[in-house]
Formats: sequence, C-alpha cells, structure tokens
Amino acid sequence: MVQLHGDERIDYLLAEEKVRIIQSPSVFAFSLDAVLLAKFTYVPFTRGKILDLCTGNGVIPLFLSRRSSVPITGVEIQTRLHDMAVRNVELNSLGKQIQMIQGDLKDMPKELGNGKFDLVTCNPPYFPTPQTEEWNINEHLAIARHEIHCSLEDVVKACSRLVKPGGKVSMVHRPGRMVEIITMFKKYRLEPKRLRLVYPKQGKEANILLIEAARDGKPDLKILPPLYTYTEAETYTAEMEEILYGS
Amino acid sequence: MVQLHGDERIDYLLAEEKVRIIQSPSVFAFSLDAVLLAKFTYVPFTRGKILDLCTGNGVIPLFLSRRSSVPITGVEIQTRLHDMAVRNVELNSLGKQIQMIQGDLKDMPKELGNGKFDLVTCNPPYFPTPQTEEWNINEHLAIARHEIHCSLEDVVKACSRLVKPGGKVSMVHRPGRMVEIITMFKKYRLEPKRLRLVYPKQGKEANILLIEAARDGKPDLKILPPLYTYTEAETYTAEMEEILYGS
Repeated sequence: MVQLHGDERIDYLLAEEKVRIIQSPSVFAFSLDAVLLAKFTYVPFTRGKILDLCTGNGVIPLFLSRRSSVPITGVEIQTRLHDMAVRNVELNSLGKQIQMIQGDLKDMPKELGNGKFDLVTCNPPYFPTPQTEEWNINEHLAIARHEIHCSLEDVVKACSRLVKPGGKVSMVHRPGRMVEIITMFKKYRLEPKRLRLVYPKQGKEANILLIEAARDGKPDLKILPPLYTYTEAETYTAEMEEILYGS
Repeated sequence: MVQLHGDERIDYLLAEEKVRIIQSPSVFAFSLDAVLLAKFTYVPFTRGKILDLCTGNGVIPLFLSRRSSVPITGVEIQTRLHDMAVRNVELNSLGKQIQMIQGDLKDMPKELGNGKFDLVTCNPPYFPTPQTEEWNINEHLAIARHEIHCSLEDVVKACSRLVKPGGKVSMVHRPGRMVEIITMFKKYRLEPKRLRLVYPKQGKEANILLIEAARDGKPDLKILPPLYTYTEAETYTAEMEEILYGS
C-alpha cells in the first residue's frame, strides 16, 4: 500500500486506465501540457535511455512507460514532489523501469554523465522569475511555474549536455517564448526539427508550443498540423479526445 | 499606353479589380506568397514610408497601395523585372505613390539612408544558392528563387538597417528555414512579434511562413490562427477566397 499525505488523491492517467497517479491540487497536479508532450515526443522503443527533467510528480515518465520499454529517469528538485513521484512509481509497480532522483537539474550532467540519454524531455517552469513579493504564495506552485530554481537557459544547457549527439530533446512551453527557446536551443547545439502548435480553438492564437530538437542535427524544421483543444461547442475536439481518452 | 514585351500579359490583381499587373510566366509571375504577405503585414496608413525589397514586378507595392496612402519604394536587382515594375506603376497611374529603384538591396542603406522606413517588406529568394550547374536554366527565375545575389543574412541585414527603430519588418518564407530566420532576425535586432503559418490543407505540414518583427522590440511573440489554403474538396477555403477575391 502506498501512503497518501494531506489532500493527495489517486487519479487514473486519463487514457491509461492501468496507470494511476498520486497528485495534490495544493502542491502539483499534472496538466494538459504534460500529456501533450508525452504524446508528441519521439521515444526510443526498446534501446537507449530517457531522462525527464522538472518531472514533478512523475507524470511524464509514467506516460512514457506506456510507449517505451527503456529505462526512464525523472529529476525533481522539490522534495515534496519527488516523494510523490517515488510513490507514483511504486503505486504502478514500475520500479524496474523508472528511477526518480531528487536534485537540481544543473548538477545532473556531473551526476549522470554527459551525453548518456537518447531522449531528454522537459516541461519546465513557464514564467520568468518574478519579484519575490509577486511569488505565488504557495511555494510549491511558485517553483513549478516560475523560473526560481532554474532559468530557461539552465534547462536548455542541462538538456544539451545530458543528451547524446544525435539524440532528441522535447519540450513544452508557451508560444510567447518561442523566439527565446529557439535562440537558446541554437546556442546549445540543439537543432529544432519538429514543432507543433496547440490552439484553444479555431480562430484563436496558439497557447501551447511543442518542440523537438536533435543534438547537432541538420537544420530543417517541420511544422506539424495545428492541434485544437476545443470545438466551437466547447467540447474537446476528436483529436484531443483521442489523446486524452484514447477513444 | 504601356508597352508589353515578349510573352508579357496584363492580369487583374485578384481581389483588386482596379489594379492591373504586367507579368510574364517566363520571367516572373507573382505568387500566392506575395498576396499573403501584403494581407498579413502591418501597414502605416497615412504617415510614414514603406519599402519593399526583392520587389520583382512590383506586386507587393501595388497591393499595399490599396491599404495605405504613404509613399512606397520598391527595389529590384534584375533590370528586366525592374522595367516591368516601372511599367506596372505607370499602368495603374500610381507614379505619385510608388517609386521603383533598380539596384542591389545591399547598397540601399547607403543609397536611401539608415532607419528611414516605418515598414520594410520582403518576399526573398527561398532557396540557398545551388551549385552553378544546378541553377534554373532560366536565369530570371533562378535569381528570383535562389540566393544568388543575396543570402538570407544580406536580406535581414538590409531590412534591419533600413527600418526605423520600432518600425516593422514583414517577410514571407518557407517553414523549413524558420529557425535560421529567427536567428538572423535576433542577430540584427529584429524582434519577431507576429507569426502566421499557412497549411495547404488540414492534417498537412505548414508550407508558408509569415513573420513580422519590430526593430528593437520587446520579446513577446503572438502566433496567429493557422490559415488553410484548400478544403478537403480541393477548393479554396473561405478565408483564402476572401484574401484572393475579396468575397
């Protein structure tokens, strides 16, 4: 039996009926962004290694374990979230495939070695560090959402060092920061190869950006078809339903 | 009366029944890309100045004259095309608003002065310079399509010098080169602010990219709703019809 603390609850992972996840609305609950990244990214199927930075309660490793049989490592800086991630691995009996590390992503190249992963995924904090007085009063949420412990550059630099030459880095972020992401990726020799934009509905601006780069790759970007979240009737689109519920 | 040479013919400018254009399939005929750029770009309406680089037969200045009353200058390096552009201005009695210059865009900052334009538009050659033996055997088309006389960097550098601080640069290009375009824009202090992707139809990858940047602008990119060219039935979509035929 896995223990639950405070307001934690166990949910099913949407389309993945066999996978359950412990989350807590007051600390961290996984978002659509994590689901979309796990569906979007390339994965090595049977050979290689996957690393997920800013893993939170471990939702991306849990999702990726359904698509790949290779070892997956998750890294989270917050002890409270790392503890949840460890219990999520236990809850799903995935201890043989998934390992959770508590630590700072900036230390990971030293700890895990350079160029060891075939894929590095990351759903990083989206917002530049605010003034301390503007922080979310909930520290756990503030750290998950704002660049308090790591800047976008820290994240991209760590991804670039940890991935193999020719390996892939996949990230989900906000369209407003696409220019900065591409500039950083180029600086750290990550060549963007696939981009997908998610729009809340037809006629609206994009609100989620999915990007995949290859370490030392040849320049040639593919921009995939747009993905819409909602129909005009405010229900999920057929493609989003398929992603969320597999139906 | 304006003279026509060789296989030149006079066409109406699609939605613009009052504007006519001389073109020649063997030398240069304007494309959908020019129409889309002319519709996408910001324009100063009554004050300021517009410059169009790589103007070809002058199609973009002709379109923009319908949206703005400010002076418009077009620059074309090929004498044969420049001559067509001059006759297009004459044909439409737009000599008071539009001036056509024959010359190399790399010389324009010296010739026209730095930072004089509120908007610089450009539909540049899309393809990196091939080996001489692979050139299109039609020299006019080869120059219009390949970076023979100017590289992407030459174009972006010229745009950046010619536009005012805070002024806009709008360009149409291929999505495969978006990373390079954004990198170049940043290098020359053009901050991308609006991006629109055009898809041939639903479910396909983007094939045209429209981008607008502000000289010394603040980073914050908006990604506009996607534009589809064709419906499933291979007819123009309603939005594309509106752009092409104004109906």
